[in-house]
Amino acid sequence: MPFQPQEVDKNAVATIRMLAADVAAKAKSGHPGAPMGLAPLAHLLWSRFLLCDPKDSHWLNRDRFVLSNGHACILQYTMLYLLGYKVTLDDLKQFRQLNSLTPGHPEANHTDGVEVTTGPLGQGFANSVGLAIAAKNAAAEFNRDGFELFNNYTYVFLGDGCMQEGVACEAASLAGHLRLNNLIAFYDDNKISIDGDVSCSFTEDVTARFKAYEWNVITVGDGDKDFNDIYDAIVKAKECKDKPTLISIRTTIGFGSLHQGTHSTHGSPLKEDDIRQLKEKFGFNPDDKFIVPQEVIEAYKGYAKRGSDAHAEWNKLYAAYGEKYPKEKAELERRAAQKLPEGWEKCLPSFTPEDKPAASRKLSEGVLTKLSAELPELLGGSADLTGSNLTRWSDATDFQPPATHLGDWSGRYIRYGVREHAMGAIMNGLHAYGLHIPTGGTFLNFVSYALGAVRLSALSQFRVIWVATHDSIGLGEDGPTHQPIETAAALRSLPNLAFWRPADGNEVSAAYKVAIESLKTPSVLALTRQNLPQLEGSSIEKAALGGYVVIEESNADVTLVSTGSEVAICRDAIKLLKEKGIKARLVSLPCFHVFDKQSLDYRLKVLPDGHPILSVEAYSTYGWGRYAHVHHGINRFGVSAPYDDAYKFFDMTDSAIADKAVNVVNHFKKLGTSLESPLGLEAKFLAAN
Amino acid sequence: MPFQPQEVDKNAVATIRMLAADVAAKAKSGHPGAPMGLAPLAHLLWSRFLLCDPKDSHWLNRDRFVLSNGHACILQYTMLYLLGYKVTLDDLKQFRQLNSLTPGHPEANHTDGVEVTTGPLGQGFANSVGLAIAAKNAAAEFNRDGFELFNNYTYVFLGDGCMQEGVACEAASLAGHLRLNNLIAFYDDNKISIDGDVSCSFTEDVTARFKAYEWNVITVGDGDKDFNDIYDAIVKAKECKDKPTLISIRTTIGFGSLHQGTHSTHGSPLKEDDIRQLKEKFGFNPDDKFIVPQEVIEAYKGYAKRGSDAHAEWNKLYAAYGEKYPKEKAELERRAAQKLPEGWEKCLPSFTPEDKPAASRKLSEGVLTKLSAELPELLGGSADLTGSNLTRWSDATDFQPPATHLGDWSGRYIRYGVREHAMGAIMNGLHAYGLHIPTGGTFLNFVSYALGAVRLSALSQFRVIWVATHDSIGLGEDGPTHQPIETAAALRSLPNLAFWRPADGNEVSAAYKVAIESLKTPSVLALTRQNLPQLEGSSIEKAALGGYVVIEESNADVTLVSTGSEVAICRDAIKLLKEKGIKARLVSLPCFHVFDKQSLDYRLKVLPDGHPILSVEAYSTYGWGRYAHVHHGINRFGVSAPYDDAYKFFDMTDSAIADKAVNVVNHFKKLGTSLESPLGLEAKFLAAN
Repeated sequence: MPFQPQEVDKNAVATIRMLAADVAAKAKSGHPGAPMGLAPLAHLLWSRFLLCDPKDSHWLNRDRFVLSNGHACILQYTMLYLLGYKVTLDDLKQFRQLNSLTPGHPEANHTDGVEVTTGPLGQGFANSVGLAIAAKNAAAEFNRDGFELFNNYTYVFLGDGCMQEGVACEAASLAGHLRLNNLIAFYDDNKISIDGDVSCSFTEDVTARFKAYEWNVITVGDGDKDFNDIYDAIVKAKECKDKPTLISIRTTIGFGSLHQGTHSTHGSPLKEDDIRQLKEKFGFNPDDKFIVPQEVIEAYKGYAKRGSDAHAEWNKLYAAYGEKYPKEKAELERRAAQKLPEGWEKCLPSFTPEDKPAASRKLSEGVLTKLSAELPELLGGSADLTGSNLTRWSDATDFQPPATHLGDWSGRYIRYGVREHAMGAIMNGLHAYGLHIPTGGTFLNFVSYALGAVRLSALSQFRVIWVATHDSIGLGEDGPTHQPIETAAALRSLPNLAFWRPADGNEVSAAYKVAIESLKTPSVLALTRQNLPQLEGSSIEKAALGGYVVIEESNADVTLVSTGSEVAICRDAIKLLKEKGIKARLVSLPCFHVFDKQSLDYRLKVLPDGHPILSVEAYSTYGWGRYAHVHHGINRFGVSAPYDDAYKFFDMTDSAIADKAVNVVNHFKKLGTSLESPLGLEAKFLAAN
Repeated sequence: MPFQPQEVDKNAVATIRMLAADVAAKAKSGHPGAPMGLAPLAHLLWSRFLLCDPKDSHWLNRDRFVLSNGHACILQYTMLYLLGYKVTLDDLKQFRQLNSLTPGHPEANHTDGVEVTTGPLGQGFANSVGLAIAAKNAAAEFNRDGFELFNNYTYVFLGDGCMQEGVACEAASLAGHLRLNNLIAFYDDNKISIDGDVSCSFTEDVTARFKAYEWNVITVGDGDKDFNDIYDAIVKAKECKDKPTLISIRTTIGFGSLHQGTHSTHGSPLKEDDIRQLKEKFGFNPDDKFIVPQEVIEAYKGYAKRGSDAHAEWNKLYAAYGEKYPKEKAELERRAAQKLPEGWEKCLPSFTPEDKPAASRKLSEGVLTKLSAELPELLGGSADLTGSNLTRWSDATDFQPPATHLGDWSGRYIRYGVREHAMGAIMNGLHAYGLHIPTGGTFLNFVSYALGAVRLSALSQFRVIWVATHDSIGLGEDGPTHQPIETAAALRSLPNLAFWRPADGNEVSAAYKVAIESLKTPSVLALTRQNLPQLEGSSIEKAALGGYVVIEESNADVTLVSTGSEVAICRDAIKLLKEKGIKARLVSLPCFHVFDKQSLDYRLKVLPDGHPILSVEAYSTYGWGRYAHVHHGINRFGVSAPYDDAYKFFDMTDSAIADKAVNVVNHFKKLGTSLESPLGLEAKFLAAN
């Protein structure tokens, strides 16, 4: 039976279009054009297909919706309002105002019903690939015969901007490979971007490209008015059993506006007379604002009920599942609540100086192997550097379509391909599904390729863990193109991100411990290619504070503060200093973010007043001014050479560091001033004010 | 007449393959597999097609070669050696050793004949699009009837890794749009990446994808042995008049090795017995190392002569051109020498406090308009934010294929589309061609999308200029997804990159002045969306020092040091402080990189000892410890709100800053210690040691 649109459908679409115009006009800011063009699609999707329960936006098996063209968020907020989420008409009137529920781009953990933070183009599309992977994986793990707990779809809207971004291209290629038929993407083919007509820069055949990615591609010729065609396209997309679907839908940006089809409707409110004629055109009173006809309100109550009924049905299924599979249900509930298994952290290995030296990437492999058994929610992967990152535990199954015979949907190791940016954004989607802890490997230097996604992990408060190996000039021969110098500063300056650079096995365990316990903070673990000794004086507990004293010394002449592979070199430097009669303390500072959260008292015990503090790190010294008076680092690009030659070249040796420390001690003794810890200088001010 | 490969061709290819094995084995590191697989292609390309003069690697019309899969650089170094560039057999023996001419990945400005720095995957491919654009543009500008000065091709090799990277996808789409038929890309379809067979993550139809991008696509089925097919493919590619060409060439990684076709030949040397059997297989003595048969040496002399003859012919043409078009030739030589026109800087506008307030993006537009007339080498563009970045001067012509009727090849404004990362890498290619100063616009926050390319600008010493508008919470309503917090720290910590955040019109002019005069340093100019007053006390000359005193005050109680839009707010705060009887100095620090290069004496005059220094900037305070004692910044993500509300919310107002300054003054007075400038503390040590 073909779909029969009703009169209310037309009204609802007109309502959404008018609201888009009114909301932007009241805010004097925003993007009305795409919401007006996408109103028919949004209405049909949310009213007839998307299964969600507005009264419980966290229902486990809800369909996920992602607005990758996040600037069109008036549309998303409007749908959330119409369906009865915790978004009101008043919230729409507060669009883009300070601390409103309706910010300029959708933010997860901020607005009810928003799954992921979007706006930076292409990210949402890649997030949706993560959401679809997580759904496949959850189904494989938890579904049982007769109990299809997980079978939700992920729907994503994207525009021309997203289509052009590399992160979306990467994600699309991977989604095609993975045959994610639970993913349905709608490409808003409105031919307009900020520079005007896309013909000035974007003339490729998008549908042919997606066919090349092995997607199922459907075209809707008139997304403005042909409701039947839109409806049928979604039905067909849901029928596809072995591919993700792209529905390319031709729309008119700003549909109804006097300037429809032009970029003038894209990024700024319509003029008042334009809005008036729009309302008249749709048969409404042009004097009224924020019009929502009663019949539309009623219709949306019905659509919401469709979702809540489905949820109620599912709840029954879930209860029965719990009777037959109590262990599985308990496990599922644990994971949905983001609770960690009791005593999980006991699996973390600890080390003594007698244990043999090891690369911290190797130590990380040991931890991941333990964690893979202890934490079924761990979902690993690498951007085609598995053998270098050592991110795959030995008995892992790959996450692959079963037909490939390379793995199956229950697999917990993802082969991301050489796609760092998509990996970062997909991990955000994996987290957002709510049941996984994603980890992803690449070289630290190439986390930079993914910074757009890392930033959104931090902003969204998503627990995503990067296993970033080859963390310095210590990678040696690959040379300056691969040796990070500035990456640590970029990540340390990012709010709500924990950048860890562990110095030995205990510190690696501590980094994982804190990363996993930090439910709302992403972490990047910088790990070495080269071997490191196990330090005397390190422990998981101490390292978990972000910074601690490795070697204490009363009446010290100098403190060396360092991270990662340079800590052991400083330890050796201190032995040389001792021979010269200089008393030096050693501090390891594996994570600034965590250390900064400790009490001032503790921090000043670690980095006290009274003597010079010398920082030692094989990175740019930028940012060390907060902790040390003088800095030993690398304020240039690296070199291609065997790693010990590179270390020597940059004076990152015990003797060079000892020499520098001697100079520092002599210099400040000569000055005779009583030195205050740089840390204390500001911190004491902040504590007092 | 079909191509007839000769015996020496076979020998040359075997030689290249054996050298690849020997070079990696001696270095005990490196990637022999791809060079062995690509040897036939490289040999045929360099011997029969690529026009270059090994004795003058800077010949203006040389064909450009880019190795996007830079890890295969043994191949590039080998070709440079065989042809007689300044790379010797001894240099090959020093592969990946400290300070050798043959680092682990190819570096521009380091090894003779290397055009661009590659290795981070996908970059080189995007660079090649820039090289091809520059060639089209140079031809349109300088060629005359009968004087085809510029008609070179750009040849680029890329592997599966490059193919998967988003930056390459973006660049491919743009190259197709631009119909760059002077670009010929060779895709090394060897089916192997680090995780093993690409079937684990990369199963798309690459050739169909490139057809969708509107590329000319040619397939070579047996790139290991079918020399004729390779030859014919290149001939056909060069015949294509309106599209870039992708030649997809099936090769066997590590061809000849016992492990050929597997990833074990990818990233580490072959074992000794494997190399022995390889040499035997090719009919050489397995005891010999670094074998280069005399006939191969002789043949390559001939190939080199082919290039130098072409260069000699071109020189004649160029001389005749100079007689007929002396002005054009002089201009071309000026640009090739990277000389700026005499007195160009006089076009930079200067301002007085009477001039009206303006957004620094608007001031930048004014400068770019002047520069576009003064500097024909300026090649502008934006990643689809032209109207927001204000990067296009009013009489600009777009760089477009003439058939589109949207511009022509002489156009100096590039519509990059929503492709920030490709824009960054393409700008590197534009610079590398040697005749242009590329500028590219996007929001500062989205420079992060392109950090992989920005880093390579800095490492390569390429003068690339980013026009990064919407530089802070001052962009307002778009909210935290678009408001940079950490971006400045990421860029300031990058070696050899100048990050500018100008405070007014004079500082905008200064930023452009220094950026353009810094021949070996890329710059990022962070510019506001909101209006800024023209400051009393600013000047182009002072701002060009990177930091200077805006308001001096003897016996000051406090110095406020700030950048960009916060400088004027600090100025107002100082007025409030004066009313409270507190004497405050004001320092503007638009560019740390340039300021740090000034004499210690000057820097200590700007940021002196003796009183507290308070930094004020609407960014993460990370990194300010070098310049100030206490920091007023934003160590969290921003907010979606009208910009003045956002500034109030974050206490970025004159009164809030004045209050903080009062607290700072009182706090440190109470302590009674004589404060040293944080800058001085380390700088004096460095000066003395």
